[in-house]
Amino acid sequence: VSDTVQLRIPGPTPLPETVRKAGSRQMVNHRGPEFKELLGRVTASMKKAFRTDAEVLILTSSGTGALEAAVVNTLSPGDSVLSVNIGVFGDRFAKICRAYGADVTTLAVEHGKAADPSEVGAQLRVMAENGKPATAVLVTFNETSTGVTNPLQEIAREIHQQAPDALLLVDAVSGLGAIPLEMDAWGLDVVTTGSQKSWMVPPGLAMVALSPRAWAAVERSKMPRFYFDLTLHRDALAKGETPWTPAISVAFGLDEGLRLIEAEGYPAIFARHAACAAAARAGLRALGIRLLADPEVASNTVTSAWLPVGTEWPALTRACRARGLVLAGGQGPLTGKIFRVGHLGSVSTNDMVRCMEILEDAMTELGLQVEPGAGARAAAEAARSATNGATEREPVFATPA
Amino acid sequence: VSDTVQLRIPGPTPLPETVRKAGSRQMVNHRGPEFKELLGRVTASMKKAFRTDAEVLILTSSGTGALEAAVVNTLSPGDSVLSVNIGVFGDRFAKICRAYGADVTTLAVEHGKAADPSEVGAQLRVMAENGKPATAVLVTFNETSTGVTNPLQEIAREIHQQAPDALLLVDAVSGLGAIPLEMDAWGLDVVTTGSQKSWMVPPGLAMVALSPRAWAAVERSKMPRFYFDLTLHRDALAKGETPWTPAISVAFGLDEGLRLIEAEGYPAIFARHAACAAAARAGLRALGIRLLADPEVASNTVTSAWLPVGTEWPALTRACRARGLVLAGGQGPLTGKIFRVGHLGSVSTNDMVRCMEILEDAMTELGLQVEPGAGARAAAEAARSATNGATEREPVFATPA
Repeated sequence: VSDTVQLRIPGPTPLPETVRKAGSRQMVNHRGPEFKELLGRVTASMKKAFRTDAEVLILTSSGTGALEAAVVNTLSPGDSVLSVNIGVFGDRFAKICRAYGADVTTLAVEHGKAADPSEVGAQLRVMAENGKPATAVLVTFNETSTGVTNPLQEIAREIHQQAPDALLLVDAVSGLGAIPLEMDAWGLDVVTTGSQKSWMVPPGLAMVALSPRAWAAVERSKMPRFYFDLTLHRDALAKGETPWTPAISVAFGLDEGLRLIEAEGYPAIFARHAACAAAARAGLRALGIRLLADPEVASNTVTSAWLPVGTEWPALTRACRARGLVLAGGQGPLTGKIFRVGHLGSVSTNDMVRCMEILEDAMTELGLQVEPGAGARAAAEAARSATNGATEREPVFATPA
Repeated sequence: VSDTVQLRIPGPTPLPETVRKAGSRQMVNHRGPEFKELLGRVTASMKKAFRTDAEVLILTSSGTGALEAAVVNTLSPGDSVLSVNIGVFGDRFAKICRAYGADVTTLAVEHGKAADPSEVGAQLRVMAENGKPATAVLVTFNETSTGVTNPLQEIAREIHQQAPDALLLVDAVSGLGAIPLEMDAWGLDVVTTGSQKSWMVPPGLAMVALSPRAWAAVERSKMPRFYFDLTLHRDALAKGETPWTPAISVAFGLDEGLRLIEAEGYPAIFARHAACAAAARAGLRALGIRLLADPEVASNTVTSAWLPVGTEWPALTRACRARGLVLAGGQGPLTGKIFRVGHLGSVSTNDMVRCMEILEDAMTELGLQVEPGAGARAAAEAARSATNGATEREPVFATPA
């Protein structure tokens, strides 16, 4: 049944057929030659995705585990940390720091907005003036809970100018691989992602890379760690292994997901996500739905929208599910206020058109006034215009039928 | 190719066909009704496996992550801890405690032996007399690195007598589900396992359960934690969720693995593992190989053996691999000295006979003197005698062809 479902949440994302098949392979010894070869291939491909010369370490955890690894390997209790918080995942990053004893200052941004680089810089100056200059700055690349992408390159530039010694720890879980990010060129110190996002693979693996500066910080760091001790991961990788038994079937899938990704190529993938996002935004607006995110910074991987007036989330999701469309609800303070449409990983603009057709149907059942066909038409039009009128080239991988 | 391989390592264990198929299902929303239903089913089944009324929490990590969870949720920096250490995994449990600031006293046992309950009791008395009574005792149920099963019930009884307030944290990763263990009846406070062991599922999920006494300790515990914060896991489970995105495809597999296990029944599973272990030990001895583990306490899930004199592990594993048999090498101080035969999860006594045939062939290639057919004959005979001469009933799940 779930094979015919439009899974339009910002992760886990739908699996291409060949990824599912790869994930069903028989087990191998994770300390043997087959896994060593796979790990070498996957980490080499990930370095290209991260745009870095640093090693990319593969952890068996969700993306949150990679965020914890970023924190506990580079910081010490009492360290002054600036958290640039634009939503639930920014909040989570800060909570991890606090759990391990860091002194966190929060720059909270209104939901739906991105962080203003100059405000980040100003906050860093204030912290320095108050005698607690930031040891690290936490930034979310793409905030899944609000559907906003931060201007990461500009924020990074500002941080490097105002606090050249501060490490920049980036939650890139739901953006990397779908939206351009340059780890080395932008001077990002720790970058994290998770298998169930743009990589089109089941959840279970998380990826993290550290700049040379971040590795130097690891030597000084005094937060306790074991499972997420990245020094152990780095040493094991040098032998073609992971320190603990890895999620092998997810790694099989990741190997195949990366093969599909490299065949399509990142420029095409970035353009496809931009076209899907344009289609989602135009389609929702044409259905009379108000978007949450500032259009200037709206995410290319997830679109957040206010629930139509008088519509409750449980009723909307039930009506959509009954028609084979799975959307995401709001998180944290936005629970019951917004809903979200994921367009990340194995997704085409045709999926977006279909999504609007189903949503229109569901809204009609709930008694909402909708102009027939308007959502799907607007989505198709936006997709055409995003792809310059060219007939959309379907991605090289098959989306679920 | 790997489908025809005899994967005879102590985890990951071979996957039954239906587990592979289940693991290749399309993704679902981990915050939706399908996953909630699955999580309810899996945790209910796990409670029966753990023999406990406590909730069994499902973590996305290797078994090592569950060990870390056991430690950081119940202890505080400076706590006095007794580590009953009979091998590499006992050592790892102690390292986790030290990484988080516990004061660890080690009771080290010679490799191949089990811990003596009275020595554990004596050590606890010494610690109390020295003014640092143990807050917790770490015990490995089944030590994968040496192939030894500790007399856990007797050790638990001794601990409860000598140090009634000490928590008993148990690494049951490679034993639970294959060798009888009674969490509640034996008074175990924290019990852990991992999906890639007796559960016949890929690695990626770990399970942990806490006694009411252990949950009370969680309230007092001051070690920092976030990803492995079990209070967050318990609260999420009450809503039918996990706090972070779980390894969904592994959970699909676990659901199917547990269905197969309940269909076979634990008494039959325990007997099958005992018969496979008897076959492995008899077969290896008949090949002229000396076993590491004391026969009184030799594990039913993994058999450890000394490398034949003059034989190097790389040569042995290469010769076996060329014939479709994957064995495990030694770990830690036993690297290059022993090898290990896993018989855990989806395994039959026929697999053990086949394993001895291949091993004989490999040994002959390496120039070792072996009596033709002796290993396989002895394995078959031991299996017959373990099953009281009855024709072995094949397990209900299909082992890989």
